[in-house]
Amino acid sequence: MQGQSQQQAYDRGITIFSPDGRLYQVEYAREAVKRGTASIGIRTKDGVVLVVDKRIRSPLMERTSVEKIHKADNHIGIASAGHVADARQLIDFARRQAQVNQLRYDEPIGVETLTKAVTDHIQQYTQVGGARPFGVALIIGGIEDGEPRLYETDPSGTPYEWQALAVGADRGDIEDYLEEHYSEEIDLDAGVGLALEALASVNDGELTPEGIGLATISVGEEGFRQRTDEEIEAYLSEHGLLAAEADEETDTDE
Amino acid sequence: MQGQSQQQAYDRGITIFSPDGRLYQVEYAREAVKRGTASIGIRTKDGVVLVVDKRIRSPLMERTSVEKIHKADNHIGIASAGHVADARQLIDFARRQAQVNQLRYDEPIGVETLTKAVTDHIQQYTQVGGARPFGVALIIGGIEDGEPRLYETDPSGTPYEWQALAVGADRGDIEDYLEEHYSEEIDLDAGVGLALEALASVNDGELTPEGIGLATISVGEEGFRQRTDEEIEAYLSEHGLLAAEADEETDTDE
Amino acid sequence: MQGQSQQQAYDRGITIFSPDGRLYQVEYAREAVKRGTASIGIRTKDGVVLVVDKRIRSPLMERTSVEKIHKADNHIGIASAGHVADARQLIDFARRQAQVNQLRYDEPIGVETLTKAVTDHIQQYTQVGGARPFGVALIIGGIEDGEPRLYETDPSGTPYEWQALAVGADRGDIEDYLEEHYSEEIDLDAGVGLALEALASVNDGELTPEGIGLATISVGEEGFRQRTDEEIEAYLSEHGLLAAEADEETDTDE
Amino acid sequence: MQGQSQQQAYDRGITIFSPDGRLYQVEYAREAVKRGTASIGIRTKDGVVLVVDKRIRSPLMERTSVEKIHKADNHIGIASAGHVADARQLIDFARRQAQVNQLRYDEPIGVETLTKAVTDHIQQYTQVGGARPFGVALIIGGIEDGEPRLYETDPSGTPYEWQALAVGADRGDIEDYLEEHYSEEIDLDAGVGLALEALASVNDGELTPEGIGLATISVGEEGFRQRTDEEIEAYLSEHGLLAAEADEETDTDE
Amino acid sequence: MQGQSQQQAYDRGITIFSPDGRLYQVEYAREAVKRGTASIGIRTKDGVVLVVDKRIRSPLMERTSVEKIHKADNHIGIASAGHVADARQLIDFARRQAQVNQLRYDEPIGVETLTKAVTDHIQQYTQVGGARPFGVALIIGGIEDGEPRLYETDPSGTPYEWQALAVGADRGDIEDYLEEHYSEEIDLDAGVGLALEALASVNDGELTPEGIGLATISVGEEGFRQRTDEEIEAYLSEHGLLAAEADEETDTDE
Amino acid sequence: MQGQSQQQAYDRGITIFSPDGRLYQVEYAREAVKRGTASIGIRTKDGVVLVVDKRIRSPLMERTSVEKIHKADNHIGIASAGHVADARQLIDFARRQAQVNQLRYDEPIGVETLTKAVTDHIQQYTQVGGARPFGVALIIGGIEDGEPRLYETDPSGTPYEWQALAVGADRGDIEDYLEEHYSEEIDLDAGVGLALEALASVNDGELTPEGIGLATISVGEEGFRQRTDEEIEAYLSEHGLLAAEADEETDTDE
Amino acid sequence: MQGQSQQQAYDRGITIFSPDGRLYQVEYAREAVKRGTASIGIRTKDGVVLVVDKRIRSPLMERTSVEKIHKADNHIGIASAGHVADARQLIDFARRQAQVNQLRYDEPIGVETLTKAVTDHIQQYTQVGGARPFGVALIIGGIEDGEPRLYETDPSGTPYEWQALAVGADRGDIEDYLEEHYSEEIDLDAGVGLALEALASVNDGELTPEGIGLATISVGEEGFRQRTDEEIEAYLSEHGLLAAEADEETDTDE
Repeated sequence: MQGQSQQQAYDRGITIFSPDGRLYQVEYAREAVKRGTASIGIRTKDGVVLVVDKRIRSPLMERTSVEKIHKADNHIGIASAGHVADARQLIDFARRQAQVNQLRYDEPIGVETLTKAVTDHIQQYTQVGGARPFGVALIIGGIEDGEPRLYETDPSGTPYEWQALAVGADRGDIEDYLEEHYSEEIDLDAGVGLALEALASVNDGELTPEGIGLATISVGEEGFRQRTDEEIEAYLSEHGLLAAEADEETDTDE
Repeated sequence: MQGQSQQQAYDRGITIFSPDGRLYQVEYAREAVKRGTASIGIRTKDGVVLVVDKRIRSPLMERTSVEKIHKADNHIGIASAGHVADARQLIDFARRQAQVNQLRYDEPIGVETLTKAVTDHIQQYTQVGGARPFGVALIIGGIEDGEPRLYETDPSGTPYEWQALAVGADRGDIEDYLEEHYSEEIDLDAGVGLALEALASVNDGELTPEGIGLATISVGEEGFRQRTDEEIEAYLSEHGLLAAEADEETDTDE
Repeated sequence: MQGQSQQQAYDRGITIFSPDGRLYQVEYAREAVKRGTASIGIRTKDGVVLVVDKRIRSPLMERTSVEKIHKADNHIGIASAGHVADARQLIDFARRQAQVNQLRYDEPIGVETLTKAVTDHIQQYTQVGGARPFGVALIIGGIEDGEPRLYETDPSGTPYEWQALAVGADRGDIEDYLEEHYSEEIDLDAGVGLALEALASVNDGELTPEGIGLATISVGEEGFRQRTDEEIEAYLSEHGLLAAEADEETDTDE
Repeated sequence: MQGQSQQQAYDRGITIFSPDGRLYQVEYAREAVKRGTASIGIRTKDGVVLVVDKRIRSPLMERTSVEKIHKADNHIGIASAGHVADARQLIDFARRQAQVNQLRYDEPIGVETLTKAVTDHIQQYTQVGGARPFGVALIIGGIEDGEPRLYETDPSGTPYEWQALAVGADRGDIEDYLEEHYSEEIDLDAGVGLALEALASVNDGELTPEGIGLATISVGEEGFRQRTDEEIEAYLSEHGLLAAEADEETDTDE
Repeated sequence: MQGQSQQQAYDRGITIFSPDGRLYQVEYAREAVKRGTASIGIRTKDGVVLVVDKRIRSPLMERTSVEKIHKADNHIGIASAGHVADARQLIDFARRQAQVNQLRYDEPIGVETLTKAVTDHIQQYTQVGGARPFGVALIIGGIEDGEPRLYETDPSGTPYEWQALAVGADRGDIEDYLEEHYSEEIDLDAGVGLALEALASVNDGELTPEGIGLATISVGEEGFRQRTDEEIEAYLSEHGLLAAEADEETDTDE
Repeated sequence: MQGQSQQQAYDRGITIFSPDGRLYQVEYAREAVKRGTASIGIRTKDGVVLVVDKRIRSPLMERTSVEKIHKADNHIGIASAGHVADARQLIDFARRQAQVNQLRYDEPIGVETLTKAVTDHIQQYTQVGGARPFGVALIIGGIEDGEPRLYETDPSGTPYEWQALAVGADRGDIEDYLEEHYSEEIDLDAGVGLALEALASVNDGELTPEGIGLATISVGEEGFRQRTDEEIEAYLSEHGLLAAEADEETDTDE
Repeated sequence: MQGQSQQQAYDRGITIFSPDGRLYQVEYAREAVKRGTASIGIRTKDGVVLVVDKRIRSPLMERTSVEKIHKADNHIGIASAGHVADARQLIDFARRQAQVNQLRYDEPIGVETLTKAVTDHIQQYTQVGGARPFGVALIIGGIEDGEPRLYETDPSGTPYEWQALAVGADRGDIEDYLEEHYSEEIDLDAGVGLALEALASVNDGELTPEGIGLATISVGEEGFRQRTDEEIEAYLSEHGLLAAEADEETDTDE
């Protein structure tokens, strides 16, 4: 309904409403999210799984520097998709919120509380002039009162709670896979398997440990834990997802 | 009277008057409200009913995270329609107003007082430059001096008081239904029934408990109360509105 | 003399002069006033009459929430026409001015003093950038030194004093009626009658109590007084202006 | 030399120079002055005369509320032409300047000093962004060191001193009349006559007391004095300028 | 090289460079200077001469109010050409600088020091956004260490020192005359003669005392001195420049 | 997919999203980086190598003033490519961060910590209005906990860690060379050789000492060390990269 | 590659990147530099030479007021080319930096330190909105630790060190001349000769003392010294560069 030339009018300057009530800058920021590689979050009985696609431009780039999974607190992890530099700003904001909460109330911040602090921050950038929206979506997973919780923040500043979700490239296909295979009854290990299978489903059924980031946040004492390449490789083998060339490449690089 | 190309001139930058005395950004914000799913408020003899349409994008999304009904105080509830992130800002504003009133005067804030504080806040965003209007309408229901009160705030910052109203998608059809069937004499239970019937009237006469949010604010001690899926299902059954597939879906998901 | 396309140039950004010395944003704000329903003010020997047209969108809307007459102080009432949310801002400003005057000088604020404080406030929004003009006209009526006074504020920030006036829709026709029938010698009761007749003259000669707001500010101790539906109905009957269907509608609704 | 379309470029945003060195916003503000009814100032041996054309929109409007002559101090009066709300701002500014001068130096402000304070204030609105120029011209008349002085301020912020001048509508014709008939030797009474004759010369030779404002600032103790309708009528009769219908209208209205 | 339409791009908003390295707003401000009547400065052995063309709009305007020569300090005079209200701002700035210098260092400000303070002030308005350049050129003449000094400030904020110069209308022709007839050896009296002859050269060889402003700043104790009409008339007679009609007009007006 | 004319809309004003989710100003800033001569960083077992292409406009320019390698701290060096003046701002920012860290924690700043402080600073210039992004990429190399580390900052504000990388002109070709020949096992000396060979590979296989900048940051006590022309020449000779004309030119110039 | 119309987009508002990574406002500021007459700097064994082309508009203008060589400190001189008023701002900034350094550290400021303070100041005007870049290039020459140093600042804010350079008109031709004839071994006297010859090379081989500015900064106690017309004339005679008409013109003017 909106022609090419009329649409242009809403792209400039501050974020304003179009005649049909849309905020184009926010919608364009969502496109920036889609340009990022996929991230997946799954809530299980005993914890949350975060899996991210970490493709790198060059074999000479350190994979660890492509940070798509961040520890926000001992009990909260965040995965992102979209504009990397924007993600870093929100992660920093989230960490400060977590610290302030700990200092002020002497207890860990709630996952929902943290999520809403982040989304309120994001919303400001969509209403007040002089800045653009954040071009990033976050998956915030953590433990609150012994229960796993899994949230999403989008560029409009809306918080959503999920059982399992994907953000970034191929979101639709991955969510279709998750909807078909997800059950609330699965445990953390099964959740890791499901997340890797879902990601593999949009990558010809194969993954390399180097191209993957994996973290789990368990209800137990362990809390947030980044998983090593070895662990990832074991999971991939177990699920028959290990790419043939991945083995070779690993030999060459290390 | 206003052609396509001339209209464009009023969409940009700050909110200004068009030659025929309209504020286009405010009108476009009203379109954002219409893009949201419907919310309904009904004032009865002994309380206020808030019913919202909570359609979710995916079965994996937590329905509780689609927050369209909010508790502002023990005696005040707020339902919203439109831009979700904007709604959250106004809800937070309303809650702070309620708290400040309690602290300053040691008594609960009046429903009208709260509504007008919110609309004044909204109006500022339509007159002073550097920000866009809020793309959300609120239904504020509560008890004041033992009497149920029901208000609406719109994106222009105008407060209205209602016996029964709808905001968001299908507003016109739902209000037609309400005008035909509403009576001031009904009690809270009948009000819940009427609200559900009105919402069903634009949904092929059927509703699922999962797709509905329901809260009541009664003149009694109970005050604001979110209703459970079971209660909603009972109401739907009682009024012959329970969707056939709703039962199945419930089986599958839980 | 001003073509369509050239005129556009003066609608955007801050309020500036057109080549023929006009301020288009102010003129467009006047159009916003004309879009509002009519308000009438009449000065009589012993007080001021304020009558407003309060059409409502729906029978379910509370008529009292359509506030077009406001008490600014015990001795001053204000009727408005135009953008409702803007009117609320100016009313609040006027009330604060009245309170400050009382506190600072320990005496009620003068009607002229209050009017000019309001118009100076309005003028700022037409000269300094970063905001749009107020899209509302006020009728400020009150008692000063025992004398009734009646003022108008327009969107340019100009104060006018009147014997009788109308603002909003049908201003021209109502003022024609007033010019023909007004006499300085009439008392408050006759003034109420004249105001209702003038309003009826542009409504097929009939009015319903529900569609009318009426307040009087008398030189006596009573000061500002909102009139009830019953009083309005009595006036309408007395002057043969009571609409036939009004009676029915009243039956149905109450 | 400046085409229609190129001229448009200089109307928007802040006041800037056109290629031929003109400030269009200032020139357009001068047009706003011409849209106002005429005001006349005449300097005589023993005082200054201010006469203004006070046409009113409606017989129901209070003529006294059309303020075109203002007392700035006991010895200084100001007449205006153009945008009324802007004039009020400058008059307020002038009065504050007069008060500050009295408080600080314990003596009345000089007419030239006051004029230049006003023009400096006006100039700022033509050079610094974020506001539009003042759309008003002032005639500032007063007594300084026992001598009558007569000044003009224009929208560019330039002060001029005159023996006799007009601003607003028909300025050219009135000044032609003044140039032909003015003599420095006339006294205040003759000055009043000349001013009325000059104004009548562009009104078919007739004036009504109600359509006129008249003030004199004499070198004597009296200083600034607004003249009553009776005095104006006497002057008009004396000079054969009294409109026939004026008598009738007076009968009708009072 | 710069077409009409491309040039437009540099006229708007803040002062920025064009592709060929020009600042159009500054160049347009120079056009504003050319729109002003001419001012001439001449440095002689024993002082500086300032002569200005003071044409007035009407015989009723006080010539003294057309201020084109200003006393900045006992030893410094300033003549201007261009936008009068802008000139007043710079003159005020110059006077404050002179006063501050006197207070801080207990000695009169140097002519060069003053000039550069003024040009630095002017430059700011050509580089920093939110204001337009000053549309005026100043001739600053004075005595420094017993030596006459003569400076020019232009709208770009560049200071120039001259033996003799003109600014405003007909600058080119007057400077041609000065280049041909100026000698450093002339004294103040001869300098006055030369300045009047130069101005007459672009006015059909005739001048009237009323149309001229003349001031001298001598190295002696006298310093800055505005010359009276009588002195100007004597100079004009002596140099055969007195206009025939000037005598008549003088008779008529005084 | 993005046409020429539509793309224009995103080049102006503040940095905003395009419909496909890109930030054009950031992408254009990356073009500014590509306009700069190449810089190379290589991480070895025992230190980091920084090599830069320092072509100079003229033989009369001092090569040392073309600063493309900077010492940020004893243990950190930074090479840049792109807009030189922007690079200087970021280098200054980095140095202040290093000093503050030393003062506050009494220990050298970590390489990763410093890199992220710089990228956060860069990101702000891409989101908040009123400034343009930085048109420069930095290679930050240093020693942290005895381990060599090598980072890149790009105009979006994203930090990357590398084993070996190039920024600026010919980035793609140089990185191809590095990918083919790099091994983590090489030592600092071999790393210098590889960097020079990589740079020579896009310069016809030859380099002159004068056209090269070289610095090493070793894990030993030496830390950051700029290498002399003699050292560079020795390296070039050793690797058969010394340009024939370089010898001659050296003779001529020194 | 950049068409006329597309280029326009980057000329307006704040300084931003073009699609090919250029900053047009900075490039246009460089054009402003080219519009200025040439300035030359030469570094010799025992000092720095600054020579400037000082053409004046009129024989009546004081040549000394065309300031293109400035003393920044006893040991530092600065020559400029381009927008004169901008140059004055940078010179003032440089002098304040020199004074602050002397006060704070009790030692003269280093030439490189001063240059970089100036270029950092310039850079700010190219990145942060609300102002335009400086339209001027500076040659900063001085003595640091007994060694002559010669720097250039350009409108982008980049510092360069040179053995010999030219800025302003004919930069290319003059630098060609310098590259051909410059040797590091020359002393100050030979440097003056070379600078004059280089300037003459683009002026038909002839120069007049009046059209030249010359200053030297020697390593000895003398430091910065402006040279007189007599000295310049002697140099010109010695090098056979003295224009024939220069002698005549000198005769005529003095």
